[in-house]
Amino acid sequence: MDRERLIDLVREQMPEQRWLHTQGVMETSVVLAGRFGADPVKADLAALLHDYCKYWPIEQQRKVIEQAGLADDLLQYDKPLWHAPAGAWVAEQELGINDKEILDAIRYHTSGRPGMTLLDKIVCLADYIEPGRDFPGVEQIRSLAELSLERALIAGFDSTISFLLQKGQKVYPMTIMARNSLIDELVQRSG
Amino acid sequence: MDRERLIDLVREQMPEQRWLHTQGVMETSVVLAGRFGADPVKADLAALLHDYCKYWPIEQQRKVIEQAGLADDLLQYDKPLWHAPAGAWVAEQELGINDKEILDAIRYHTSGRPGMTLLDKIVCLADYIEPGRDFPGVEQIRSLAELSLERALIAGFDSTISFLLQKGQKVYPMTIMARNSLIDELVQRSG
Repeated sequence: MDRERLIDLVREQMPEQRWLHTQGVMETSVVLAGRFGADPVKADLAALLHDYCKYWPIEQQRKVIEQAGLADDLLQYDKPLWHAPAGAWVAEQELGINDKEILDAIRYHTSGRPGMTLLDKIVCLADYIEPGRDFPGVEQIRSLAELSLERALIAGFDSTISFLLQKGQKVYPMTIMARNSLIDELVQRSG
Repeated sequence: MDRERLIDLVREQMPEQRWLHTQGVMETSVVLAGRFGADPVKADLAALLHDYCKYWPIEQQRKVIEQAGLADDLLQYDKPLWHAPAGAWVAEQELGINDKEILDAIRYHTSGRPGMTLLDKIVCLADYIEPGRDFPGVEQIRSLAELSLERALIAGFDSTISFLLQKGQKVYPMTIMARNSLIDELVQRSG
C-alpha cells in the first residue's frame, strides 16, 4: 500500500487533533532518525502508523489483543497501553507492513521493552516530545534529546512512572525493564 | 535456638546503630501485628532477623546468593536488596528457623513481592516506619499505617521508587509487581 493511501486510512481512524499529533511524531521521528543514524523512511512509516488503533473502541482493542494471542498480561494494565500491540497487529495483517523493525516500533511505542532497537527508541521518544506535547518536564526531555536518545527516553519514562505513582495507578513492569535496560546501556557505554 | 541467643547473634552482625533500628522494627512489627491480626511472636522473630546479613561484606552476600541458588537476577540490581534473601537463607541454614512465613518475611522485606502475606507486609512496612526512620514522607506513611497496611506499604514503595528515579538508578521489577499487586488487592476489596 502506498504512503498516500496509508495516510488516508490513518486519518480515518482518529479525530483531527490526533492526526496533528501523528504528524508531529512523524516529523520528530525523521529528525531523530537523522540525528542518531536510523532509516528516516522506516521512522516516518512507523510514526505514521503508531496510533492507528488509539481511538478504536476499547473493546475492539481488547478483541484484537485476545484474538491475536498478543501479550495478554497487558489487559491487566492501563488501557492506554493496548492500542500499541493492537496497532502492530493491524499494520501487519491489514495494511501489509512486514518489516519487523517497523512493526516492533509500533508495538512497543508506549510500553518500551528491554533491549529497544534504535527505531523503537526513536518512535517512543518522538511520541513524548513532538511539538504538540506540553507536560511538566517536556522541555527538559527535548533538551536531552539533542544529545542522547537513551537519556531522553529515560527521562520520558520517569515522567510516566512518576505520574502513575501520583495517581495510585499500576505501572506496567515492562516499562521498568525498558528503563533498566537503557540505564545498563549507558553504564556499558561509559564503562 | 532461644530468642536471647538469637538476639546476641544478631547484635554481633551489625553496628549498634543498626541494632537500634532492628529493635525499632521489632517493636513496630509487633504493634502492626496487633493492629492487623498477625501473630506477634512471628512478627517479632522475623523483624529480629530481617537485617542479619545487612552489614556482611558485599562479596559474602553475593556468595550466599550464588551458592544457595537464590534468585540471582537480584545481582543485576541494587546491592541493598541482597541482604534480604541472604538473611533468609542464613536464618534457615544456620539459625534453625523453619517457619516458611518467617523466612519469607525476611526474604521479601526489601523488595516486596506479588501476593505478599500479612507477615511480609508487616515487616516490610515496619522497616519503613520504625521510630528511628526519618525521610521525606515518613509521617504520611505512619498516618496511613493507622488504617491500612496496603495503602501505607504502597506509599512506602512509592517513596523508594521515586528516590531511584531521581537518582537515575534501576528499579527492581518485583517491587513494581508488589505495588501493582497491593493496588489490585485494594480494588478487589472495594469492588
